[in-house]
Amino acid sequence: MKTSLDCIPCIVRQALESSRLVSNDPALHQKNMRDVLRWTAEMDLAQSPPAMGQRIHRQLRQMTGVGDPYRAAKDRLNTLALELLPAFSARIKSADDPLLMAVRLAIAGNIMDMGMTSKLTEADVHQTMQQALTAPFFGELEKFRQAIDNAQSILYLTDNAGEIIFDRILIEQLPAKTVTVAVRGAPVINDATRVDAQTAGIDLLAEVIDNGSDAPGTILSDCSPQFRRRFAEADLIIAKGQGNFETLSSETANLFFLFKVKCAVIAEHIQQPIGMQVLTAQSSIPHERE
Amino acid sequence: MKTSLDCIPCIVRQALESSRLVSNDPALHQKNMRDVLRWTAEMDLAQSPPAMGQRIHRQLRQMTGVGDPYRAAKDRLNTLALELLPAFSARIKSADDPLLMAVRLAIAGNIMDMGMTSKLTEADVHQTMQQALTAPFFGELEKFRQAIDNAQSILYLTDNAGEIIFDRILIEQLPAKTVTVAVRGAPVINDATRVDAQTAGIDLLAEVIDNGSDAPGTILSDCSPQFRRRFAEADLIIAKGQGNFETLSSETANLFFLFKVKCAVIAEHIQQPIGMQVLTAQSSIPHERE
Repeated sequence: MKTSLDCIPCIVRQALESSRLVSNDPALHQKNMRDVLRWTAEMDLAQSPPAMGQRIHRQLRQMTGVGDPYRAAKDRLNTLALELLPAFSARIKSADDPLLMAVRLAIAGNIMDMGMTSKLTEADVHQTMQQALTAPFFGELEKFRQAIDNAQSILYLTDNAGEIIFDRILIEQLPAKTVTVAVRGAPVINDATRVDAQTAGIDLLAEVIDNGSDAPGTILSDCSPQFRRRFAEADLIIAKGQGNFETLSSETANLFFLFKVKCAVIAEHIQQPIGMQVLTAQSSIPHERE
Repeated sequence: MKTSLDCIPCIVRQALESSRLVSNDPALHQKNMRDVLRWTAEMDLAQSPPAMGQRIHRQLRQMTGVGDPYRAAKDRLNTLALELLPAFSARIKSADDPLLMAVRLAIAGNIMDMGMTSKLTEADVHQTMQQALTAPFFGELEKFRQAIDNAQSILYLTDNAGEIIFDRILIEQLPAKTVTVAVRGAPVINDATRVDAQTAGIDLLAEVIDNGSDAPGTILSDCSPQFRRRFAEADLIIAKGQGNFETLSSETANLFFLFKVKCAVIAEHIQQPIGMQVLTAQSSIPHERE
């Protein structure tokens, strides 16, 4: 999807919050802010919002000289999620509909997004995961069930660290002969990379690949040829999180999106309220207005 | 006060909202947004936020070719406030402390600020005015009472249309021999100009002057020499609203500010929570960090 004018104040605010998370230097915050304002003034609105996120976080890594400034935050989120995992795994085993429960937990894990909120607390995560099973849910569950039953090969695109621990629960429910799990090609915000897939134990369940890109989403033209081939060859693609939705919503593929609606622009686009847990086929998404 | 980096996303958001209020043309919204991003990228942060507001709203008036795009909104706010006025005026007459009640009502009227929220409804105004007399209040009331008792001449700086109707209640309580009421020199957002002072009937109670400026605050260097002389000569100045606070908080004058705390930057600056009704002497404001 394209970048809405409504995305711009949010991009600017997130850039400021991110600069403060990765540095205590007010001069760096100001320089980053002025650069982001210049870039957004000239930006191509036909690009999806994660394209600008990629540019901002590249600059923050370059300015701080720290290749993975969110590493500690990602470790904290993984640890927190791993503590919660056993209880939820046990509940899946006794659930009437394990797939529905796994879908809800995987979507709920999408709260662990430090791009959207830098102030995420452990209490927030605990509360959201507890509420996940009864929270408002808009899902094409039967269409999804059929799709995973029919697919020989599934490509699962992860989103954030922490969240990826709960993705494991859903990945365990996938019946396909071949399940491949993709992470980002390099650190960006708190998005999951290979090490997070390993921390989640996903490398023991499925092949883990990276997409070759440091965008906080899946910008296919920026991904490696290897990844693009896997994307083209998969029978079914499951994409987690708003960043993957924003970058892939116009791709014609057998694609399902799982995410929590986090902003008014997405809410308007898919006609669901903020906070809604969404499972939707790409083919069901309303076409974007030109 | 200076512009904080935290003001920038808010300035950008307000600029977008304002462009949509004054025009239905998406191309105009986009051009305005890109210009505002360019300006904020280069802005002198030593200036107060209303300096940028002035520039943005000048451009919107120029782009739309409409000299006073908020005129209808201002008329609506005035009408709404005038409907509420008789009931509150009656309560003042029987109040134990009419000055306190008048101060609270004048501050509560500061909700009618279309710079901060473009979505203000009649219900919001009704509710706020009803709650005004019991809402949280942080005020140097006795200091203020003494100041108005000692002043021979008082200059009262108004803020918004609608709000100015309730300013009249407070102006009626001022015992000074000479009360002068100042409005903006030209339309900007929904700030009050001469016609609003007349609608409020204030021209029958006091001399009404304008400040010669179209900033949504009181940038003295941008005001007319006549206004600056009146500002310098007044025994006491009463300044309404956050815009007047932002532009005058560092002026050393016998100055009292009355406003509702509307954002986190101001809340941090004066150490009061968002929503608080504040009456404070200029001399009591914490010094700004360099």
